[in-house]
Amino acid sequence: MAEFELIDLIRTRCAVTREDVRLGIGDDAALLAVPAGQALAVSTDTLVSGIHFPKSTLPSDIGWKSLAVNLSDLAAMGAAPAWATLALTLPQADREWVAAFADGFAALAREFDLALVGGDTTQGPLSITVTVHGFVPEALALRRDGAKPGDGVFVTGTLGDAAAGLRLLESPSAIGKGKEHFVARLHRPTPRLAQGLLLRGRAHACIDVSDGLVADLGHVGKASGVGAEIDLTLLPGSPALREAFAAAARAPLQLAGGDDYELCFTAPATVADALLGELARSGCAATRIGRIVAAPGVRVCDVHGRLHEPPRAGWQHFSP
Amino acid sequence: MAEFELIDLIRTRCAVTREDVRLGIGDDAALLAVPAGQALAVSTDTLVSGIHFPKSTLPSDIGWKSLAVNLSDLAAMGAAPAWATLALTLPQADREWVAAFADGFAALAREFDLALVGGDTTQGPLSITVTVHGFVPEALALRRDGAKPGDGVFVTGTLGDAAAGLRLLESPSAIGKGKEHFVARLHRPTPRLAQGLLLRGRAHACIDVSDGLVADLGHVGKASGVGAEIDLTLLPGSPALREAFAAAARAPLQLAGGDDYELCFTAPATVADALLGELARSGCAATRIGRIVAAPGVRVCDVHGRLHEPPRAGWQHFSP
Repeated sequence: MAEFELIDLIRTRCAVTREDVRLGIGDDAALLAVPAGQALAVSTDTLVSGIHFPKSTLPSDIGWKSLAVNLSDLAAMGAAPAWATLALTLPQADREWVAAFADGFAALAREFDLALVGGDTTQGPLSITVTVHGFVPEALALRRDGAKPGDGVFVTGTLGDAAAGLRLLESPSAIGKGKEHFVARLHRPTPRLAQGLLLRGRAHACIDVSDGLVADLGHVGKASGVGAEIDLTLLPGSPALREAFAAAARAPLQLAGGDDYELCFTAPATVADALLGELARSGCAATRIGRIVAAPGVRVCDVHGRLHEPPRAGWQHFSP
Repeated sequence: MAEFELIDLIRTRCAVTREDVRLGIGDDAALLAVPAGQALAVSTDTLVSGIHFPKSTLPSDIGWKSLAVNLSDLAAMGAAPAWATLALTLPQADREWVAAFADGFAALAREFDLALVGGDTTQGPLSITVTVHGFVPEALALRRDGAKPGDGVFVTGTLGDAAAGLRLLESPSAIGKGKEHFVARLHRPTPRLAQGLLLRGRAHACIDVSDGLVADLGHVGKASGVGAEIDLTLLPGSPALREAFAAAARAPLQLAGGDDYELCFTAPATVADALLGELARSGCAATRIGRIVAAPGVRVCDVHGRLHEPPRAGWQHFSP
C-alpha cells in the first residue's frame, strides 16, 4: 500500500462532518472557522512505541489512546473539541494495522464529534503525534495558575487503574483479578471532556493526571505559587483496585502512576457542593482529596495523619 | 538534562511575542485568538532521521527545515503564519544538540514572527513533527482544485538544487562545483510566504514543490480535474545547477527532485503579467513553465517538442 492509499484509508474510516471545516484533508493545509468569542485551544502529544505503550498493544488501542491523551488536555482546559491532525510514522504500510488503528481513533473522534482535518504519514519507527484543537471562551478557560490557598483539591473518577494495568502487562502474575478492567483503563482512557465543560469558570485550576497525581498537582502548585496537602485515605480507587491491592500497595499506583487521565482541579468551598453534584450527574463523580496551602510542594498524609513519602516524582522523559 | 529543562531551553531560545497568544507553553493547551474574518490554516509535517534528512545533518539545519517545510504549506495556501507546535522525539536529551536545533528553528520563526505555543518532548528514535497555524480569508485561499484549462503554469525561484544537494551528500564525488549552495538549498529551504500572499485571490491553484514538480503538479491536476503540459526548456535552474549539470542530467533533478519548496501555481493570462512583476519585485521571481489543459496527466515536452518521459513519479513513502 502506497502513502496516498494509506491516507485515503484513514480519511474514509475517520470521516466526521463539521460545518466549521471549510477545507479538510487533501490540500496543503486545512481551512477552519473558529466561532466568534471563542479562544482556540491547541495541544499536541506524541506516543512512541515501547515508551508510551507496550510494543504488544493492539493497533486499535493505539489509535484510541493517541487521540484520548490529547483530548484529555482539552478537557483539562475546559475546551470543547473540534479538530485534530494526525502524524503517523510507521515501519511498514500494513493495511490491516492501519485500518485497525484508524478504527480505534475514529471511535473516539465520533463520540466527541471531532473531525480529522489533516496529517502526515511517513516511514520510520512507530510513533504517533496528534494535535488537537478545541474552543473555550478565554475568560472561562481552566488554567494551571489559578489555585488559591483554601481551595479544595478534587479528582474525577478513580486513580491507579492504569498503573495497575501497566504493572500487569509487565509481570502478568502480579495481579490475580480484574486484569481486563485494568488493561482497558490503560489502553482506552476516557477523556473527561463533559466534566471539563462543567468546571469552566468555576474551578480555580485544573490539570489532567497523565504523569501521576503528585507530579501533576506539583505543576499546578508551581504555576500558582502555592502547595497542596493530599490525604491518602481520600484517594478514590476503583472496586477492582481495592480488591486487588492492599492500601500500602495501592498508594504508589495512585500517587505516582500516570496514564489515568482523570482531571485534578481546585475549587473554593463556595462552589464545590453544587459542582460535585453536577459532576456526579454527568456520569463521572469527583472526590475531594485535599486542599491548597500557601507553602510550596505537595505533601501526602497517611491514615495516621503522618507525612507519607511519595514513591517517585512522576514520569519524566530523559530522567537519569 | 530532564524533560522539563529541555522544554525550558527550547522555550527560551524560541521566544517570539505575539498579542494573539493568550496563553503559551506551560499549560495543558495553548489559548489563541484567531482574527475575525480569517480562516485558520493548519498543516502538519513529520521529519524522520535517515528518511527526510541524512543522519549526518546538523541539528540547526534540522530545526530550520522542520519548520520550513511546514511554513511552505502555509505559503502554498496563501496563509500568513502565526503559531506552531513542536513534537520532538529524541534518543537522548543532549543539551548541545537541542540548543542548536532550537536556534535553527528560532531563526526561521523570528523571520516570520511565528510563536511556538506548545509541544511535546519524548524519548525515542529522532523524529520531529511540527504543526503550523496561519490565517487567510477563506475566499482568497490558494487551493489545489481551481486550475482551469488555459491557465499558465508557473513556478517561483528555481528547481533542482535540493535534489542536487541530496545527490552530493549521497556521493560527494558526483558534483564538482557549487557544493555549499546545493546543500544549503536542501537543508535550509526558504518558504515562499511573501509570494503566497501575492498570489491570494489571483492564482487559480497552488501547491508547494515538496515531492517533485511532476508529482505535485499531478496533485493539482487531479484535484482540479485537468492536466498540464510542461516545457522542459522553460524550467528555471540556478546558475550553479546549469553550470554543474548538462541539460539531460538536470531534467530528472528538476522534474522529480523534491525538497525545493518553491510554489507551483496556475493563473490566467489576464493576471499573469502584473503578478510576475510583483513577484519579481518581492525578491523571488516566478517563471512560466507550461499550461493547464483539459486532458488529465502531466506531460513534459523536451527541446524538440517531443514527449519527455519523466524519470519517476515523485516521492511516496511505502512505495514498492
